[in-house]
Amino acid sequence: MSDLKNRILASAKEDLEDIEIALKQNLKPYLDLVSQTASHILFAGGKRLRPLLMVLSARICGYKSSSDKTFSIMFEYLHAATLLHDDLVDEATLRRGKPVAHSIWGNSIAVLVGDFLLARALSIAADIGRLNIIKIISEITENMSQGEIHQLMRKGQPDLSEEEYMEIIQNKTAILFKGACQVSAVIADAPEREEKAISNYGFNLGIAFQMTDDLLDYTSNAGILGKEAGADLKEGKLTLPLIYALKQADSKDRAMMERIIENKDFSADEFEILLELLNKYKGLKYTEELAAKHIAKAKEALVGVFKPSGTRETLINIADYALARKY
Amino acid sequence: MSDLKNRILASAKEDLEDIEIALKQNLKPYLDLVSQTASHILFAGGKRLRPLLMVLSARICGYKSSSDKTFSIMFEYLHAATLLHDDLVDEATLRRGKPVAHSIWGNSIAVLVGDFLLARALSIAADIGRLNIIKIISEITENMSQGEIHQLMRKGQPDLSEEEYMEIIQNKTAILFKGACQVSAVIADAPEREEKAISNYGFNLGIAFQMTDDLLDYTSNAGILGKEAGADLKEGKLTLPLIYALKQADSKDRAMMERIIENKDFSADEFEILLELLNKYKGLKYTEELAAKHIAKAKEALVGVFKPSGTRETLINIADYALARKY
Repeated sequence: MSDLKNRILASAKEDLEDIEIALKQNLKPYLDLVSQTASHILFAGGKRLRPLLMVLSARICGYKSSSDKTFSIMFEYLHAATLLHDDLVDEATLRRGKPVAHSIWGNSIAVLVGDFLLARALSIAADIGRLNIIKIISEITENMSQGEIHQLMRKGQPDLSEEEYMEIIQNKTAILFKGACQVSAVIADAPEREEKAISNYGFNLGIAFQMTDDLLDYTSNAGILGKEAGADLKEGKLTLPLIYALKQADSKDRAMMERIIENKDFSADEFEILLELLNKYKGLKYTEELAAKHIAKAKEALVGVFKPSGTRETLINIADYALARKY
Repeated sequence: MSDLKNRILASAKEDLEDIEIALKQNLKPYLDLVSQTASHILFAGGKRLRPLLMVLSARICGYKSSSDKTFSIMFEYLHAATLLHDDLVDEATLRRGKPVAHSIWGNSIAVLVGDFLLARALSIAADIGRLNIIKIISEITENMSQGEIHQLMRKGQPDLSEEEYMEIIQNKTAILFKGACQVSAVIADAPEREEKAISNYGFNLGIAFQMTDDLLDYTSNAGILGKEAGADLKEGKLTLPLIYALKQADSKDRAMMERIIENKDFSADEFEILLELLNKYKGLKYTEELAAKHIAKAKEALVGVFKPSGTRETLINIADYALARKY
């Protein structure tokens, strides 16, 4: 697994360096204004996965110019803007092992810097000068906010269905992954089948990525994950492992789980009981298997259309890693 | 004055009705998701000034289709999104005489519904299918968030200069007014001199509108204004009347004013003293005169380029009203 990560980092080394440079250059004129908060969220160990997906997708679609690095920044901005607002909405305390922005500088600056980063993303999209791309970006922002509102409305409600969960993670995560890949096909003027394939790859990768995130919230620990285990549940977020287990459980076990869900300040012992029940009713296994199916779909989409290449291999490695990662 | 308002409302009656219908239609598919919060901010006595400016500007620039009504909604969304986020940032309590959204439904939903309305505005802009318009909208959103951040950074600091104040109100208010007018010229394929003139009108109107707002915060009262008098100052916002008076005051009076500014929980008596000093050093008069100059510029821009018409008269009446209004 760690070997997989190293292979990705080795093959994407130059791209990741270029993305870092583009990000710093793009943010430079605004540093006085947004320096601390924006830096805190943008330069605190983010993986740059979304910009990297865009750059790799552009390459596999035959894009030749180097502007993709600058364009790719917009996906990091969109991501960071969402993190700033969501951490506030979730009343989160830790992100990547550090206190979240709003707990350091207050809600006000987290809201406004999030707005600023969103506006910056839009400016970059406008600079590309393609209406198709604007439509993709507006679809992403609209879906993301809808997904977040949906999640908030259903907070702490144990009757959240698997269908609703799927709708939420599509909106809040998968559409952004898809968009990062699809925009590349547009700027590369790739044929429709390539645009469809790479979009499909991004979408399924996004679904699996979010499912793995939701799994790790149960199976990882604070030291590795950079936030508390069980944090989602403490924020009232029901995710697939629990949704599935609740559906499968007998009435006694379901009542036990619901009691723990309703008590946000559950103890470590109670969390252990919950984990046992998740295992007993195969909530973790079911989620893992579904994530694996989406990764298989992502890879199929890629392999079905694009010839073997180093870039294709890296995209496949990223898909495998999305599933295998432990944090 | 009330007569001026009545004349505007009479001449714009049909447009305002069409805007209301367009707004309701556009929001309809999302009502389940955002109903209460969005309705609270969108249907609570807003003047629809920005959409109306767009519709009137489109007409004066010779736009013939009726799509301008739908397009104009994006400016109400942008405005409402800003209100939701700003009320949260300002820790405001009242807006148009009602409790602000975040105090009813919490910060989370105010943040997310603001994001959603911003995304909806962007989707409408994308639907228009003109890159120029996307650039205008991205400039508006970027400037607005920069203006708000600038204001927040300088909160409660009595050394805010008139230049900084001008920069802040341009960014947070005037660019949106300008944009609503300019977008109309673009969809109407108006000649460059018309686009410049109507943009100029919108920009100067926006400046004067904000200055009048800032004046009313000192001279109006809660019953009329829908929020407390002195609310800006309680939020740590220094506006032109005070900035000018501070600059003109002798050291004793300046010290007195600074003491009141620093004490956010100033008494009614202290606020009276402050008002007397604002009068003594002509802070209110200076602001009124400067706002009047911008209104004169706005009207000149209009009259210099567009022939007399009912639409031109309404735009001129709106400019006069922006200055004369008491709430």
